[in-house]
Amino acid sequence: MAEGRVHNFGAGPSALPIDVLEEATKGLLNFQETGIGIAEISHRSKEFTAFLSETEDQIRTLLRVPPTHKILFTQGGGSGQFSSVVLNLLARHHLLHPDLKNEDRVMDYVVTGSWSKKAMEEAKRLGGGRVNIAADARRYSQDGKSFDTVPPHDDYIFSADPALIYYCENETVDGVQFAGEAGLPTSFPFAKLPENTILPLVADYSSSFMSRPIPRLADHAVIFAGAQKNLGPAGLTILIVRQDCLVDVDAAAKLGAIPVPLMLSYKTLADSNSLYNTPPVLPVYIAGLVLRKMSAEGGLQTYAQSNRRKFEKIITALKEGEAKGAYKGKVKEGSVSWMNIVFDVPGEGRLQQFLDGAAQRGMKGLAGHRSVGGVRVSLYNAITEEETDQLVQYMNEFATKTS
Amino acid sequence: MAEGRVHNFGAGPSALPIDVLEEATKGLLNFQETGIGIAEISHRSKEFTAFLSETEDQIRTLLRVPPTHKILFTQGGGSGQFSSVVLNLLARHHLLHPDLKNEDRVMDYVVTGSWSKKAMEEAKRLGGGRVNIAADARRYSQDGKSFDTVPPHDDYIFSADPALIYYCENETVDGVQFAGEAGLPTSFPFAKLPENTILPLVADYSSSFMSRPIPRLADHAVIFAGAQKNLGPAGLTILIVRQDCLVDVDAAAKLGAIPVPLMLSYKTLADSNSLYNTPPVLPVYIAGLVLRKMSAEGGLQTYAQSNRRKFEKIITALKEGEAKGAYKGKVKEGSVSWMNIVFDVPGEGRLQQFLDGAAQRGMKGLAGHRSVGGVRVSLYNAITEEETDQLVQYMNEFATKTS
Repeated sequence: MAEGRVHNFGAGPSALPIDVLEEATKGLLNFQETGIGIAEISHRSKEFTAFLSETEDQIRTLLRVPPTHKILFTQGGGSGQFSSVVLNLLARHHLLHPDLKNEDRVMDYVVTGSWSKKAMEEAKRLGGGRVNIAADARRYSQDGKSFDTVPPHDDYIFSADPALIYYCENETVDGVQFAGEAGLPTSFPFAKLPENTILPLVADYSSSFMSRPIPRLADHAVIFAGAQKNLGPAGLTILIVRQDCLVDVDAAAKLGAIPVPLMLSYKTLADSNSLYNTPPVLPVYIAGLVLRKMSAEGGLQTYAQSNRRKFEKIITALKEGEAKGAYKGKVKEGSVSWMNIVFDVPGEGRLQQFLDGAAQRGMKGLAGHRSVGGVRVSLYNAITEEETDQLVQYMNEFATKTS
Repeated sequence: MAEGRVHNFGAGPSALPIDVLEEATKGLLNFQETGIGIAEISHRSKEFTAFLSETEDQIRTLLRVPPTHKILFTQGGGSGQFSSVVLNLLARHHLLHPDLKNEDRVMDYVVTGSWSKKAMEEAKRLGGGRVNIAADARRYSQDGKSFDTVPPHDDYIFSADPALIYYCENETVDGVQFAGEAGLPTSFPFAKLPENTILPLVADYSSSFMSRPIPRLADHAVIFAGAQKNLGPAGLTILIVRQDCLVDVDAAAKLGAIPVPLMLSYKTLADSNSLYNTPPVLPVYIAGLVLRKMSAEGGLQTYAQSNRRKFEKIITALKEGEAKGAYKGKVKEGSVSWMNIVFDVPGEGRLQQFLDGAAQRGMKGLAGHRSVGGVRVSLYNAITEEETDQLVQYMNEFATKTS
């Protein structure tokens, strides 16, 4: 580890691999022997377009993205996509069903945490269709307002032919995630989805992208992810879009759909290979280096296995600490995120003691999101098993001192 | 200069100061002794929010931005703003004039090059108002379709109470720029603007931002600039927005305005101090370092003087070369950009000879935009006078060999 670096368990922007950062310092001054730094090189230079194309290929290979889907690079983060998915998929719905009234265009939202709630609110705010809450996880919490579980399969009610069906795979703030293995009670209920339609299924994968394989990827219309968790710096958003969702938004607007800003149109991005305007070259570069490293180290399965081990280590320490009364997990079993594990430290002043003690040991970024408090342990790809072990050791020591 | 670096006269992304890049390599591994790299640190950490606030202050001080205007940081580039200015200022117009029909909402566009043309086309595409071409520079070109001059003051026709009045201060592709000094025939015709209204004046300053002072800055409603010319890496967009343009877009939508995606609302950005969602932390960082350097070196006047000298050196070489038949300037006198000087190299194969010879001497990025060809010399802030002298020497040698 480079001098003075601490262990960054933050929820994002979050830790990046040190060897990638060290390589990036070279690229910042001279990208691939061009004599020009990566932040300075033309996005239309053959060197950068080749790099962008390689980055796309890496994602395609690592996630096994089928040729039915385009991989696109854009800006604006997950919050930008909250609007873009609505605008593009409403446009698609207008083209498929030109005669439908807007109040009969339904957008199904699965609400499992604060991010899917925000996305749902943006759909309501934009209008152009009616929002149906296909499932609301708060119903299953003790206080009726917390997000601490994924709803059980039987309780989802999807519409027959919605404009979109939306879920957030991993809720970064609340630490709730769908189980990776389809069929588990807490996995996404693919079997419940409407049949006889090309599914307009949208998933926000921002904080779990590239941490493990994406179940039923090919069935998705749009998968999006901000880069700043497992992949790279903030300022880059990755899109995986099925080709039938690259629609002519102008034709849809003529039919009454909301006009779509040009840079938010998926077709604009796809037609230009993500080079309609200058992409965020430097974030793309670092993400590309991270992907190269992932491929060299055995691909997604290697990371998925390591992420599972890291998760289980922290969960074991959490449960042992719970038994001693030191910690209290916030999320119900089966819905606990691999990426963001949230728990309380009960007792006057104990939370601050926990955080201070961690900081003294060089472990930072462990405070929970300001809206929920407590501790949040983010175990993104760049967190090593050794770093996880250090945190486990500290959690155990702290719990023992408590009991 | 770091080993292997060439002279990058590219039009953007473009050269950055080497000392800034060297400092950034340190920040990439460890930002301000936090133990966390700048690409990894939380955007809500006290260290980053302080840096963001300092960056804002630097812009305010360097450009003398009055307290009537907010400085905002966003993503999506100039092309993203082509839509955002229309959506926000149409919303403002709806709130000011709720009873007006949309066909009576006029947006005045001054078209002086390919970027203002694109912006105008986006306004037409989005709808919600009528586009009036306040002036079209093509009228003054020999072939009726080239952009090679700024229209004379007498020929602008602005509307009485438009939703917006749009111009692009420097046309990067065509090399056409408004003269900096107000009152010159080729400056922006402020005196012709409608009176008795708070001007909804919008300027795209992408490729001249921070190169010299902005005339009549306080009279602008919105000034926007992609960072990737004089300021920093691609992926960051700077906005200077007058407070009356931070409007409630939802209230306007209820009155019939086009719904505005949340992240494109200026009010969303302003209310959250540009931290509604994760900003492009790494591009902000490098831009902040560039601004620190500018302040330390005497501020905008120093740069403006140096940029004028660089411009005059190249123009002198161009004119001497023209006299020898080696070059042919593309832009009429008085409208030539300080930032992007475009010229042809007449004669079979001569252009390629010019570019190859330059590349052999370590000078890259000199090919004109793919839509217009020829040579484009971009003289952004990071291009030193020594680099300019090298290019001048080469231009002179090449011209002499031609004659």
